[in-house]
Amino acid sequence: MDEIKRLQEILAQFALERDWDQFHSPKNLAMALSIEASELMELFLWKTEEESFQVRSENEGPLKEELADVFLYLLRLASILEIDLLQASLEKIKINRERYPINLSKGNNKKHSQLRL
Amino acid sequence: MDEIKRLQEILAQFALERDWDQFHSPKNLAMALSIEASELMELFLWKTEEESFQVRSENEGPLKEELADVFLYLLRLASILEIDLLQASLEKIKINRERYPINLSKGNNKKHSQLRL
Amino acid sequence: MDEIKRLQEILAQFALERDWDQFHSPKNLAMALSIEASELMELFLWKTEEESFQVRSENEGPLKEELADVFLYLLRLASILEIDLLQASLEKIKINRERYPINLSKGNNKKHSQLRL
Amino acid sequence: MDEIKRLQEILAQFALERDWDQFHSPKNLAMALSIEASELMELFLWKTEEESFQVRSENEGPLKEELADVFLYLLRLASILEIDLLQASLEKIKINRERYPINLSKGNNKKHSQLRL
Repeated sequence: MDEIKRLQEILAQFALERDWDQFHSPKNLAMALSIEASELMELFLWKTEEESFQVRSENEGPLKEELADVFLYLLRLASILEIDLLQASLEKIKINRERYPINLSKGNNKKHSQLRL
Repeated sequence: MDEIKRLQEILAQFALERDWDQFHSPKNLAMALSIEASELMELFLWKTEEESFQVRSENEGPLKEELADVFLYLLRLASILEIDLLQASLEKIKINRERYPINLSKGNNKKHSQLRL
Repeated sequence: MDEIKRLQEILAQFALERDWDQFHSPKNLAMALSIEASELMELFLWKTEEESFQVRSENEGPLKEELADVFLYLLRLASILEIDLLQASLEKIKINRERYPINLSKGNNKKHSQLRL
Repeated sequence: MDEIKRLQEILAQFALERDWDQFHSPKNLAMALSIEASELMELFLWKTEEESFQVRSENEGPLKEELADVFLYLLRLASILEIDLLQASLEKIKINRERYPINLSKGNNKKHSQLRL
């Protein structure tokens, strides 16, 4: 089975066994996801960008856990919303190709809304 | 090829073509991920939990884009950090099984650190 | 002296004594602020809105600390950016009065950009 | 009157006139605060730390608005929770003095929990 669907089924089972569906509204899952993304970011706080490349070797366990936490809540939220995450991602990449044409965006970090200004 | 690795290769190519590797430090990608998770959460702001289930039908386009944005930055960050997201997720699920045994966590929303208090 | 300026002077002194100005770029302070706001939000995660009113009595210490952390980083960031927080707030209230006229926004939770749709 | 209390009274009046108290649960206000802190952070995304000092001159209007948004939701949340923000901040500064003694924390960016390791 596909990786994404397989993980989503494991998570659905995990919630079911614990009677957690009652807590898993889209609103609550989006909050949980945002909190986990912030905890992941905290591992890089006060580091220079250069130093942020070393966090992998200095702090691998927490880093893997936080990346996983973000992924698991994202999968669960997509599942509850019945949105196909892979399909949505491929569509978004297509949108990004249009928003960020190579000739305009090469080597610059402007947001698409400011690219042509 | 696996879904996750396939998306990561597309993203690596996308960044390469635009000369964006210079911006993609782990610190910056973690910031971007956190910002996207917050934009996703904003779609549910001021809604009741009940109402949050309707956001899918009322606002499907933005919802799919924000879910995808979170996923794409997560994939890119894992890729730069050389962390296997699927493997890390399976390990985290194992940790969660130990932290949240069914008999203690069934039907309650306590954090594992407070489960046995 | 004004409350806000007084706190900002204490914080400037605190950073100076610890030689922390080197870490206090606007980018880093904005990250720290966002992380603290997320930790504050975490105190309400999985609660119903109703239950969220009880967090004050159940968890007062952490709640006060997290509110303070957000405020302290906000003050420090405004200070580094040389922006007058009180003045900016009064101006923003004025903008909000225009964006959310009573007759259009009374009893509804729509964002200003969708108010007239 | 004190600056903080004065702003809080203006905000209470603002919500009252619009019948917005129904939306202003602590949970929702904490979400709104976190979203605004993230929007503030976005102004610094992809910038180097060096460049982040220039955002003030390049983007002053949005910067002032986002700082104000964070402050206004923070004030409103503290108000709803009946927590004295100034008092909580002075207490937190005292805690920070103990957690970060000058001799241990001078010139380093470690979290207090790792300071003595």
